[in-house]
Amino acid sequence: MPRIKRTVIQNPLRRIIFSAVAVYALLFSSLSFSDCDMPKDLPTGDLGIIIERMDGSVLIINNSSLSVLCRVEGLGDLSHASAVFSRNARYAFVFGRDGGLTKIDLLKGKISKRILQSGNSIGGAISQDGQYIAVSNYEPGGVNVFAADDLSLVAKIPATYGSSTLTSKTVGLVDAPGNQFVYSLYDGNEIWQVKIGRKTGKTETTISSVDIKKYRNVGKAPYDGLISANGRYYIAGLFGEDGLSLLDLWHTEKGTRKILSHYGKGQKKLPVYKMPHLEGWAIAGNHAFLPAVGLHEVLVVDTDTWKEVSRIKVHSQPVFAMASPDDRQIWVNFAFPDNNTLQVIDSETFKIIKQFQPGKGILHMEFTPRSEHVWVSVRDNDEIIVYDTQTLEEVKHIPAKKPSGIFFTSRAHRIGL
Amino acid sequence: MPRIKRTVIQNPLRRIIFSAVAVYALLFSSLSFSDCDMPKDLPTGDLGIIIERMDGSVLIINNSSLSVLCRVEGLGDLSHASAVFSRNARYAFVFGRDGGLTKIDLLKGKISKRILQSGNSIGGAISQDGQYIAVSNYEPGGVNVFAADDLSLVAKIPATYGSSTLTSKTVGLVDAPGNQFVYSLYDGNEIWQVKIGRKTGKTETTISSVDIKKYRNVGKAPYDGLISANGRYYIAGLFGEDGLSLLDLWHTEKGTRKILSHYGKGQKKLPVYKMPHLEGWAIAGNHAFLPAVGLHEVLVVDTDTWKEVSRIKVHSQPVFAMASPDDRQIWVNFAFPDNNTLQVIDSETFKIIKQFQPGKGILHMEFTPRSEHVWVSVRDNDEIIVYDTQTLEEVKHIPAKKPSGIFFTSRAHRIGL
Repeated sequence: MPRIKRTVIQNPLRRIIFSAVAVYALLFSSLSFSDCDMPKDLPTGDLGIIIERMDGSVLIINNSSLSVLCRVEGLGDLSHASAVFSRNARYAFVFGRDGGLTKIDLLKGKISKRILQSGNSIGGAISQDGQYIAVSNYEPGGVNVFAADDLSLVAKIPATYGSSTLTSKTVGLVDAPGNQFVYSLYDGNEIWQVKIGRKTGKTETTISSVDIKKYRNVGKAPYDGLISANGRYYIAGLFGEDGLSLLDLWHTEKGTRKILSHYGKGQKKLPVYKMPHLEGWAIAGNHAFLPAVGLHEVLVVDTDTWKEVSRIKVHSQPVFAMASPDDRQIWVNFAFPDNNTLQVIDSETFKIIKQFQPGKGILHMEFTPRSEHVWVSVRDNDEIIVYDTQTLEEVKHIPAKKPSGIFFTSRAHRIGL
Repeated sequence: MPRIKRTVIQNPLRRIIFSAVAVYALLFSSLSFSDCDMPKDLPTGDLGIIIERMDGSVLIINNSSLSVLCRVEGLGDLSHASAVFSRNARYAFVFGRDGGLTKIDLLKGKISKRILQSGNSIGGAISQDGQYIAVSNYEPGGVNVFAADDLSLVAKIPATYGSSTLTSKTVGLVDAPGNQFVYSLYDGNEIWQVKIGRKTGKTETTISSVDIKKYRNVGKAPYDGLISANGRYYIAGLFGEDGLSLLDLWHTEKGTRKILSHYGKGQKKLPVYKMPHLEGWAIAGNHAFLPAVGLHEVLVVDTDTWKEVSRIKVHSQPVFAMASPDDRQIWVNFAFPDNNTLQVIDSETFKIIKQFQPGKGILHMEFTPRSEHVWVSVRDNDEIIVYDTQTLEEVKHIPAKKPSGIFFTSRAHRIGL
């Protein structure tokens, strides 16, 4: 362009040259927004993202064609990153460890907006109505709520606990029916239930009200939480004592109660290499499959009584135990130094039916929503392996740079994911 | 255009007029494909369709903005029509009563392809891998399987039953994990489990194999079927005798078994105005809520034992009993002449918490996938009413011509829907 600028255009070709400049500028400006040549008329039902943690990038994938559509860069520190999706399945909201909240437009293959909302964050959720994104923070603690459309801040909820002026790290943040968010205060030993008032005007991004209900002394140091698929039970794992804390959101008048009190990390005093994730709690039929902290076991819990039914011996300390959507299998990965192994448990017999060792750094698993495939990130192989859940055979290897979390857009239609 | 054609264009404006003609032709040709000005870059996660049964048309709607995007016409006889969605949530496959199978492109707001696949059909399903559409037929019976991409016929499975050469009407067709279809033979008293061999090549539309497993003497005249959300239990309602027939797809070696044998239409000899739909079976927690045939009751069944737990007195003969995705409510509509009433049951207390009488011809209900809204078609009002499931208040009235079935694209990610 500089060359053209310096030229004095006085001949009849002036208009044509100007047009060329305009086209070039158009091309250039579109390139500056995106490096990806995304397909036109792209439906969003079978898309997903893969976190590339080392490079601060994200792959946009298609889980029908088993292909990568785009790499989106510039997302900052993505170690321990997670994501939720807008209800139209167009946007992914990625929560980075550095407090970054990035909205990715899957149709355009580019970042729509990115903010640094705190110093250090741990995850987030999207409200039932799709209008609000909540992010839980380590530093300086508390939860921030943003408008999903432009990521403007709409509420800052400090986690001041008990009667003190101290503020807590917040963890285990999930959405719940009734446009609520539920999360735990790691330092405060509390669970908070926050209802975001809905605005009737569909373009409004301000909040009409924020009602907070606090549950105190829920147990020592809740470190993560999950909500059942119907949004009824919120369960926080405890780091500071044995057992877990259960809140029945249909009966909040009963407060929280302790479950599996006999269970904990104390018993065998094994070193805990990595705290297991609760998001991956597998609930299949009336059984929940829980990665035991510090033990080489997956606990089987009856979801009616919340009592232990069985313990399944597994290869090492489990990190994720995830149920296939057809409830037939529980896939388990493990903490370092055994994170090269993947085991598949039959949800009915509790037997291990398959073990894989495809490579080191098996960090995450994501099932396709109707259960035919599971995508597994193998960090040190720089690849995703897709398995057929029926045959337990490999379907495809997909290159990815140090992949960790895998998230499909079908999560947009699930409570608590 | 005729006027322009008759003009001899010899002046310098010739090119401009030709351009105008070209633009007009372009507009016209695009109009001939679609009457809808669909938004560009339309994500497909929050779309849906509404059947307008009298006019053979379908509305494409958005369940975030609560708006109608398009009316697609020319779908033939849509009484009792149902629909499934492609896994990318771009295409709706509509099964008409006249044997029509119509593929609608939701992005373009037009029919991609339409075939008349039999004389009289009753519903269909899409395979787990998204490659095959199966349609069950009354006339001439049997099931036809089509490629989802171009609706070419890939398998014709006649429903020849027992040792006879007679063929049966097929009903209660659903998809099941393992790329299977399951359906019932109304005349044959059989349930068939059909496995469609998957092709590894992703563009293949031919079938590698069709394996059929037949269960005989399942009960008299199975008239409809359903499958549990995890794809484990297939249940056929029986028209010819009391009780229902249950097939555990995890234990097919056990064959089918009869459940709720004491229950049936015989007891009180009430006239049956409309056979209830089983697709709407509500399973909330460990309870299934079943519209009782010919009785003013909703049966509550324990899904562990498959025994009756309770009966809930309702306004009239129930047609659909549908659970909200958060499991808290069961919404029930009724057969003629009481199809002006809607009741909401609390899934925990079994009490009726609300009754509506918004108009005559309440034909169908569809929940948004995270449970905040339910859309209700009120045929004789020519409208859809959207209710808030928390407040039980009306959120919006949406005009529609004699609406019946409502189907959201989130079904693409559910087993058996």
